[in-house]
Amino acid sequence: MDSLASYKLAADTIRLLSADAIQKAKSGHPGMPMGCADFAFTLWFKHMKHNPANPAWLGRDRFVLSAGHGSMLIYSLLHLFGYGLTMEDLKNFRQWGSPTAGHPEFGHAAGIEVTTGPLGSGLASAVGMAMENKHFAAKVGLDKTDLLDSKIYVIAGDGCMMEGTSHEAASLAGHQKLDNLICFYDDNSISIEGSTSLAFTEDVSMRFKSYGWRVITVDDANDCKKVDAALEDAKKSDGRPVLIVGKTKIGFGAPHKVGTSHCHGEPLGVEELAATKAALGFPAQDFYVPAEVTAMLKKRIAELSDEAAKWNGKFQKWIESDAVRAELVSKLLDKKVPADILEKLLEVTPKDKPTATRASSGAILQKAAALVPSLCGGAADLAPSTKTDVKGAGSFQADNRAGSNFHFGVRELGMALAGNGMALAGTAIPYVSTFFVFSDYMKPAIRLAAIQKLHIIYVFTHDSFFVGEDGPTHQPIEQLAMLRTIPDMTVIRRTALYTSGSESFHF
Amino acid sequence: MDSLASYKLAADTIRLLSADAIQKAKSGHPGMPMGCADFAFTLWFKHMKHNPANPAWLGRDRFVLSAGHGSMLIYSLLHLFGYGLTMEDLKNFRQWGSPTAGHPEFGHAAGIEVTTGPLGSGLASAVGMAMENKHFAAKVGLDKTDLLDSKIYVIAGDGCMMEGTSHEAASLAGHQKLDNLICFYDDNSISIEGSTSLAFTEDVSMRFKSYGWRVITVDDANDCKKVDAALEDAKKSDGRPVLIVGKTKIGFGAPHKVGTSHCHGEPLGVEELAATKAALGFPAQDFYVPAEVTAMLKKRIAELSDEAAKWNGKFQKWIESDAVRAELVSKLLDKKVPADILEKLLEVTPKDKPTATRASSGAILQKAAALVPSLCGGAADLAPSTKTDVKGAGSFQADNRAGSNFHFGVRELGMALAGNGMALAGTAIPYVSTFFVFSDYMKPAIRLAAIQKLHIIYVFTHDSFFVGEDGPTHQPIEQLAMLRTIPDMTVIRRTALYTSGSESFHF
Repeated sequence: MDSLASYKLAADTIRLLSADAIQKAKSGHPGMPMGCADFAFTLWFKHMKHNPANPAWLGRDRFVLSAGHGSMLIYSLLHLFGYGLTMEDLKNFRQWGSPTAGHPEFGHAAGIEVTTGPLGSGLASAVGMAMENKHFAAKVGLDKTDLLDSKIYVIAGDGCMMEGTSHEAASLAGHQKLDNLICFYDDNSISIEGSTSLAFTEDVSMRFKSYGWRVITVDDANDCKKVDAALEDAKKSDGRPVLIVGKTKIGFGAPHKVGTSHCHGEPLGVEELAATKAALGFPAQDFYVPAEVTAMLKKRIAELSDEAAKWNGKFQKWIESDAVRAELVSKLLDKKVPADILEKLLEVTPKDKPTATRASSGAILQKAAALVPSLCGGAADLAPSTKTDVKGAGSFQADNRAGSNFHFGVRELGMALAGNGMALAGTAIPYVSTFFVFSDYMKPAIRLAAIQKLHIIYVFTHDSFFVGEDGPTHQPIEQLAMLRTIPDMTVIRRTALYTSGSESFHF
Repeated sequence: MDSLASYKLAADTIRLLSADAIQKAKSGHPGMPMGCADFAFTLWFKHMKHNPANPAWLGRDRFVLSAGHGSMLIYSLLHLFGYGLTMEDLKNFRQWGSPTAGHPEFGHAAGIEVTTGPLGSGLASAVGMAMENKHFAAKVGLDKTDLLDSKIYVIAGDGCMMEGTSHEAASLAGHQKLDNLICFYDDNSISIEGSTSLAFTEDVSMRFKSYGWRVITVDDANDCKKVDAALEDAKKSDGRPVLIVGKTKIGFGAPHKVGTSHCHGEPLGVEELAATKAALGFPAQDFYVPAEVTAMLKKRIAELSDEAAKWNGKFQKWIESDAVRAELVSKLLDKKVPADILEKLLEVTPKDKPTATRASSGAILQKAAALVPSLCGGAADLAPSTKTDVKGAGSFQADNRAGSNFHFGVRELGMALAGNGMALAGTAIPYVSTFFVFSDYMKPAIRLAAIQKLHIIYVFTHDSFFVGEDGPTHQPIEQLAMLRTIPDMTVIRRTALYTSGSESFHF
């Protein structure tokens, strides 16, 4: 570790860039970036494998800001690390057309791996990324090299931990033994209504242990040295995902508002901002970056670029050593779909007798999986009913990372968010499935997929009131309208002839 | 406890009534009722305070079948305990117009406290019932008597435990120290796709301990004696909600299908059903109730009726001793709303200058709370933004059960489901609140409220793209259409003049 003082200076720079931008915008959440700056800087500077010159670098670790309201944290980092966000962009925080949107938006600025804001969603998508990274590695044989040991780093706040999806995602991650997932829990004891003790007094560490996570506690996560030690420890896999519980102070550095809900969702105010700068030993100037910080980052960015180049060389050699492998890798990375796929799929459609659409769908999926290697997915404990199991493809489990059938459990929202993460991983075209009526649970995730323009396929079966005897809770009525009104979502409803008879007929 | 043999006989009767009805319907889930019959019978027969002659009896405990697919369990119980479900009704399980619907539907048959089916929803609604029971008791002073110590009993399965809402609800229940909540976890290790080990290997006991629950383990919950001891223990409050983790065998009694996913969601089949009857020592006859079982129930139903009558007498005396109290109790039980409420609310609408609708809403809520004592509720950690805090009403917490402001935490779905439970408790008109866009999270709960025709109010603020700089994840677009397409839901959108200016204007 470089000198602690330089880390502290860089973290303070992030704190003040964030507070300045939020003050200028008269809108935003300064408390979180100020509280997490020490962790985030230490991570990005020393531990995370990334390459600002190529944000899409295959060998990179990924950073997910699940507490998306702390967006100025990632914008400050992207600026300092040379990802292309200019000082002008920071000054235009939350302004019309600016890449520095209120919450981080995938595709708006390089280095943003996922759109976040709805709490808990980032963590759940990170679980999908972690699964697909392992899946991809095993499918192409990278798991037998030292080339793809990428980590997914997450920052989650109290809100993320309260959301139900954090349970679904963390339980799945523990089951799947995703040791490539490291989540920092920003344990700052403050939420919008005041102290978290108003509504949230569970033992988060014990909860994550119950899921099969390893938990590392940092009693003062505003101390870069302690954070560094925790990250060093976290990277040593023992086969479990890792939760770093970091006690932070929300609004760290702000002399009067630190540790209060007043710095959660509004600018510090001109006076408090000035007092913060004075307290941290910074000049009164807005958007100030000390020369020492610029210099240490310039040096580090060059190192990161070298490390990536070295990796690329090794990867290229590994690829070239096997033509079959090279073709598979290329197909996965390009998410290749044959030009004549429609024709080929129509060949296998059952035609001899009236068939339930879910059965046709199942038959077509078998063929599609054979034609499109990047296709993979599963159901929320309903695969036998939704016919989404691909025969012979194996189950994705800790002891079979190459398996392409994913068992998501009865976790519809977590499944859909993990599906988003699988799509974002860049090597899969995921599908997720459940009964149509339970698309209700998935609405927040489907909306996020649409906003991010992700290629993800939802297979919903048991359409309309014809599901019959399960009753109103299982009869989709308004779900079709719900999905059709989501901007940027394509909804295809396959109608089938209804044949009355002794058996109920599922669509 | 009566003789163990008689409990076993009654539980076997429930098993076979369930299996017979499902076989006749050629549709349903026999595994769960067969696995949980011992627990459920022991609970209903010996521990639960209820009154078949008056299912709405105020002094009753409540039973929530969160694992709603096991509906034949509750129908068998309602039949045996004389709640009005006839043998004909059982024979018409899952048939058009029958009260014995595929999943338990509130209002279709007496004794069903809540509509369940979507997993996890029953548990979360039970948390709302438990909160409102304590709230009502404290508001009227019943907490200072021994008259209202009702419990809420829940049966939840693996699916309930996997759902995110189980986390939101259980974390809130632990925080709120709801010692009137006792949940039986039907730990049978089987889900639809096969063994739960495919996707669900968390330590549920440890998880609930992390929430502040007391956990009691029953190594064989198909043994009525062990179940009885656990219930005896669970009823002794130490100030925490209780989880009884009961190891059961799904499809208990079915010689070949026991312990497999084959008895989860389909009839046993004629042969296996016959073999089950033989194995349990029952005659081959369908829908058979041994005379001994009928007799023991007849006796017990009379006792329950006597106990209720005794309670009613004491309650009446307590009510009559204080006229002010009597009026309040009556207002709460009738959910009384003054006839001239609209007029009175309009008096307090801000009129002097353009006002954000959420501010008007907040002003009106203050007045409404004064006029309608049964009105209570809160927000998912957004009360300062949604203006839903009632000044001077206090916060509902373990040390202030009379408080009427509920802090639900960042748990939108859990909040909405708890809200349903509060409405079902019968003494409150609950409101729940968050930003409009996050109604997405609540969709499954809102639909359940509509199906049950509950009186619950949703206060959604920050409407339309005018929320501005928070970006697309926070901008409601299709939510209005989503809510308007839910059958039996009334949606009122308050439009406001948009005044451009230096401040963003929230609707």
